[in-house]
Amino acid sequence: MVVAVDAAGGDFFPKNPIEGALLALDEDSSLNIILVGPETLINEELQNHNYDKDRIEVVDAPEIIGMKDSPSAAVKTKRNSSITVGIGLHKAGKCQAFVSAGNTGALLAASTFILGKLEGVSRPTIATYFPTLKGFRLLVDAGANLEVKPEMAVQFAKMGQVFAAHEMGINDPKVALLNVGEEEKKGTENVRAIHEALMSVDGFVGNAEGRDIFPAKADVFVTDGMVGNILLKFGESIPSALKHMVKAQAKKGILAKLELYFAQKVLRESLSPFNYENVGGIPFLGVNGVSVVGHGGSSPLAIKNMIKGAISCVHSDINGKIVSSLN
Amino acid sequence: MVVAVDAAGGDFFPKNPIEGALLALDEDSSLNIILVGPETLINEELQNHNYDKDRIEVVDAPEIIGMKDSPSAAVKTKRNSSITVGIGLHKAGKCQAFVSAGNTGALLAASTFILGKLEGVSRPTIATYFPTLKGFRLLVDAGANLEVKPEMAVQFAKMGQVFAAHEMGINDPKVALLNVGEEEKKGTENVRAIHEALMSVDGFVGNAEGRDIFPAKADVFVTDGMVGNILLKFGESIPSALKHMVKAQAKKGILAKLELYFAQKVLRESLSPFNYENVGGIPFLGVNGVSVVGHGGSSPLAIKNMIKGAISCVHSDINGKIVSSLN
Repeated sequence: MVVAVDAAGGDFFPKNPIEGALLALDEDSSLNIILVGPETLINEELQNHNYDKDRIEVVDAPEIIGMKDSPSAAVKTKRNSSITVGIGLHKAGKCQAFVSAGNTGALLAASTFILGKLEGVSRPTIATYFPTLKGFRLLVDAGANLEVKPEMAVQFAKMGQVFAAHEMGINDPKVALLNVGEEEKKGTENVRAIHEALMSVDGFVGNAEGRDIFPAKADVFVTDGMVGNILLKFGESIPSALKHMVKAQAKKGILAKLELYFAQKVLRESLSPFNYENVGGIPFLGVNGVSVVGHGGSSPLAIKNMIKGAISCVHSDINGKIVSSLN
Repeated sequence: MVVAVDAAGGDFFPKNPIEGALLALDEDSSLNIILVGPETLINEELQNHNYDKDRIEVVDAPEIIGMKDSPSAAVKTKRNSSITVGIGLHKAGKCQAFVSAGNTGALLAASTFILGKLEGVSRPTIATYFPTLKGFRLLVDAGANLEVKPEMAVQFAKMGQVFAAHEMGINDPKVALLNVGEEEKKGTENVRAIHEALMSVDGFVGNAEGRDIFPAKADVFVTDGMVGNILLKFGESIPSALKHMVKAQAKKGILAKLELYFAQKVLRESLSPFNYENVGGIPFLGVNGVSVVGHGGSSPLAIKNMIKGAISCVHSDINGKIVSSLN
């Protein structure tokens, strides 16, 4: 198995991607890594580490796509960026997956354009893990498609179900449509049309309201990229907000300090199952390849888990299963 | 000051609305209350309480609009419901405000249809308090308008600013547009058009992402009713989800039990500033009257605070200020 890693992606490159890649090599002896990015930067960082030189290849890609670059423009004009070169390696069969903590839009554009779409897919989508009281569940779309047509929503639902079943170990994943009420006639005209289209999906349980996410009324929550992206980023901000809220309770006195200490400890433990670093990223669903994007701030641990997730998707032939599900 | 209260609204009528009304009478000696709903039910409940008979009037409205009734149909067919009768009393000048924990859509429809819109308002909106690290801020629209045109968004922003300034004590309220990214070109075509239109609003600070809400990047977050409603209900579910997450950490042993006890105590205290019961509801903004809707599950305390909020809006002439701001 060969996985290419974007050594010029994310807020902490090349350090975090390279350290994450080395962690992955340590854990999986059948893995080789291609590091893609500015060669000199990569080699400089590699000098700080002990590693098996036979299992790492460096492919030079001197151009940098920044986190704020316009995705489509960046992919078109920066042909020698780590993203375009890395996806090109995947397309050419030099690796079975590409992993990046870089510009999500640019990676999605490059993946869709260079790797192409799976048979039967209108639009690839970004699914994301979302914490619930039953553990992580899926939210799809998380920002790739701000407007979603009914047939796209059906594909998102089915692709999400395949991922949930084969990568998250959820039997017969249930699908719900995020909406403003439970009744099927709720929502805009388009959302009502999506509801009707989703009736054809096995496991569709109807609408879910915002309050139905934490109790995991469904395993795959379907929505458009506008709602999904705002909800995802709001959800990600909860732990830090809570820390501030709890800290604001700080009072004088030893007992109060002790209470606060315990509260912070328990809160940390309560939220730790939802640490995204432990689950890494999810490949773009619907792309003809395994292209995984993670947080810009990904730690080495997160990068390692993104690589493991990518390997798992290759082994389980997630794309073959998606094509079977859709056609 | 006379406020009419929907005694047949919410999940716990007539008990909670009546107890809330009595609490409000206790706190404000210049207040009189009209209880609107099925007369026999109301009188039965009133028998359980001591109160000043001169300050409470009962107006019979035998029909009940349920929480799941279709709003427009309910308003048209149930002319003798507490909502239509109560809003009718307000229209006729028998009271200065109407407060309900009943069917939000029905109350909005009745308020818009019977009371009419303020000069310059395209569509009345539902604004909601949203907890942030700086205290409550406003989210608008929270579900009344699932699709929002640029000129509507501008009105929502300005009406929200008036409410934030005069009812929440926020100086020069800042407005942000919820979007999938900070850059002004982000979002759907309509969202980009809204962004451009909002540039004309004093205090507009640009786009806010989901992660910008808790840190209160703005005081008034403008969005459409789909995003707003899903976000609101998701946000409301956080405290209960946290309780479950923390409880799931329960371990054996006295020290662990003590830790958990303190954690639950501190968490409760941390979240208590965000108890919606303390702030009650916000009147529909843009309606020619003061019509306040609250949670179906409103407690007597919540009803009392809704009544106080309504009185405050009458005193501050919030509607006059909205008209000045828009025209």
